Amino acid sequence: MATAGKVIKCKAAVAWEAGKPLSMEEVEVAPPQAMEVRVKILFTSLCHTDVYFWEAKGQTPMFPRIFGHEAGGIVESVGEGVTELAPGDHVLPVFTGECKECPHCKSAESNMCDLLRINTDRGVMIGDGKSRFSIDGKPIYHFVGTSTFSEYTVMHVGCVAKINPEAPLDKVCVLSCGISTGLGASINVAKPPKGSTVAIFGLGAVGLAAAEAARKFGCTEFVNPKDHSKPVQEVLAEMTNGGVDRSVECTGNVNAMIQAFECVHDGWGVAVLVGVPHKDAEFKTHPMNFLNERTLKGTFFGNFKPRTDLPNVVEMYMRKELEVEKFITHSVPFSEINKAFDLMAKGEGIRCIIRMEN
Amino acid sequence: MATAGKVIKCKAAVAWEAGKPLSMEEVEVAPPQAMEVRVKILFTSLCHTDVYFWEAKGQTPMFPRIFGHEAGGIVESVGEGVTELAPGDHVLPVFTGECKECPHCKSAESNMCDLLRINTDRGVMIGDGKSRFSIDGKPIYHFVGTSTFSEYTVMHVGCVAKINPEAPLDKVCVLSCGISTGLGASINVAKPPKGSTVAIFGLGAVGLAAAEAARKFGCTEFVNPKDHSKPVQEVLAEMTNGGVDRSVECTGNVNAMIQAFECVHDGWGVAVLVGVPHKDAEFKTHPMNFLNERTLKGTFFGNFKPRTDLPNVVEMYMRKELEVEKFITHSVPFSEINKAFDLMAKGEGIRCIIRMEN
Repeated sequence: MATAGKVIKCKAAVAWEAGKPLSMEEVEVAPPQAMEVRVKILFTSLCHTDVYFWEAKGQTPMFPRIFGHEAGGIVESVGEGVTELAPGDHVLPVFTGECKECPHCKSAESNMCDLLRINTDRGVMIGDGKSRFSIDGKPIYHFVGTSTFSEYTVMHVGCVAKINPEAPLDKVCVLSCGISTGLGASINVAKPPKGSTVAIFGLGAVGLAAAEAARKFGCTEFVNPKDHSKPVQEVLAEMTNGGVDRSVECTGNVNAMIQAFECVHDGWGVAVLVGVPHKDAEFKTHPMNFLNERTLKGTFFGNFKPRTDLPNVVEMYMRKELEVEKFITHSVPFSEINKAFDLMAKGEGIRCIIRMEN
Repeated sequence: MATAGKVIKCKAAVAWEAGKPLSMEEVEVAPPQAMEVRVKILFTSLCHTDVYFWEAKGQTPMFPRIFGHEAGGIVESVGEGVTELAPGDHVLPVFTGECKECPHCKSAESNMCDLLRINTDRGVMIGDGKSRFSIDGKPIYHFVGTSTFSEYTVMHVGCVAKINPEAPLDKVCVLSCGISTGLGASINVAKPPKGSTVAIFGLGAVGLAAAEAARKFGCTEFVNPKDHSKPVQEVLAEMTNGGVDRSVECTGNVNAMIQAFECVHDGWGVAVLVGVPHKDAEFKTHPMNFLNERTLKGTFFGNFKPRTDLPNVVEMYMRKELEVEKFITHSVPFSEINKAFDLMAKGEGIRCIIRMEN
């Protein structure tokens, strides 16, 4: 490519201050360094995690910053030492990486890479501690190693999953975070046997994806805890002859976590925590709830190893074993990215695709 | 047998009052009713659970009562409807049963039978709500459906495991409770892959049996939390490069439960709770400890289905895959049963076998 090795000037949506609308700017994107790749983003979408760190409530502020982590794109160029990716490859950026060398990557059970595990406090590349984005020489911080609200971005090779080039990037871009998280929580962690009852707490993108895995959005009952005077775990136990076989908690509210655990059946029930809790949250329950043969486990990114497993999730979509279209409720051009923030603030829709090119 | 269908007069160690030495009495043991069997006990041993309910601290007192639940014996006669057992069969009584009909018994994952699950508050047979023991017409309460501190006892058929008649009852009698509980916690629930690090909290019979399953009593390190100023979960994490692969909690102390959970490695660690907690205990931890891909599960009787699986545990012993002799540190004749209580009170030894016949 003509651009390889050179700085690229392109458009990016920059967050200059916490909670203020993003501003479309021309940024300079440096070439990828060792073990990095530069990717042309074609489609990105907005996830609650972007909003959470953009609002930055109670956080150490890190601005100006380029958010965005659910996306699909094409490799523009690669840095020294990169052998697994080449220009032209279709890829999904991932907010958490897979180095393939650490004990977590070598464990069949973990996806919490020691080197590239999500780090929301780091705004620079791990190779040299610097940003690849700048405006007039002033650095702009990265976000979770992806920063996909830019026409071009630079990522560590371990945070990029190479996928089937025939997969439509305007659809599968949503698989790089929330949808896979919910899907994996069901199929990799809760693993409900056929015919199981499954309770899902929270029906945002993650919860709906957990339901998709359990029964293709086939929720048969909706329970609003506010409609009941007794604790929702008791309501669920009465509905299911003693408790559900599996539960998946997708809100991050600690009370919902406790309810999700206590609503599973004794003897065999498994509860899976997905939603990220408040830093001061405390999980409390009577230990007999465990002794009665209940299992509680948490998952991160649905226990998918990002580089190894995400290509297979895309293949599930290609084989029509997984629908993603129904998660995509809105679409806006990049110039209107702030509309995606407005939609999420209003709770309208599930995923809004942001089209970088038109 | 000449005694079938008749009342048997025999010796039993009766607890007349909470915490008072047992008194050797002649009791009348009624014939087994429908779905019951009468068993001649040859060997029994003393477990903490007997002592706990004998002390009856903070409990609704249920006396006079015949304790005892770890034992081996021979079927004397069977009641109506009993087809799986016959006089002469060698059996282990079990404090929790297996009806083979309920959802728990039909689940491959549970051993918490709806009908015959342990009930420490019931002092009578479930068939007719009456005791089979009496002295001068006054009923003596049963304990957990077994009451093995008697030369003869009556049990529901679902609480009796038929075993290999060649197995020495003076040894395998200890398999009917604590040893199997610890063994099963390791092999059925924690399931440590070969080469795993395993932390065991509490080294009574249950904890030692968990160690036996993990590495044949092969503990390589002993950690006394009192020797350290920092929390023991941090000490263990430092010793094991981030945490142990598996932990098994065998004390019932809620703080040890929290430590056992928090000491397992993120990404793949599994903690198993075995010890029974205080009724007012509260398990507390930060939910991120789960989200970081740790699993917490409890087990009851090591997840063994008593009638289905206990015969196989006995076979493990027969094949020399499991040692039980080293758990047996003392032996007394039935007439000196109170010595077994004294030994346990002093924390001397692990298991004391009580010989019914000499």
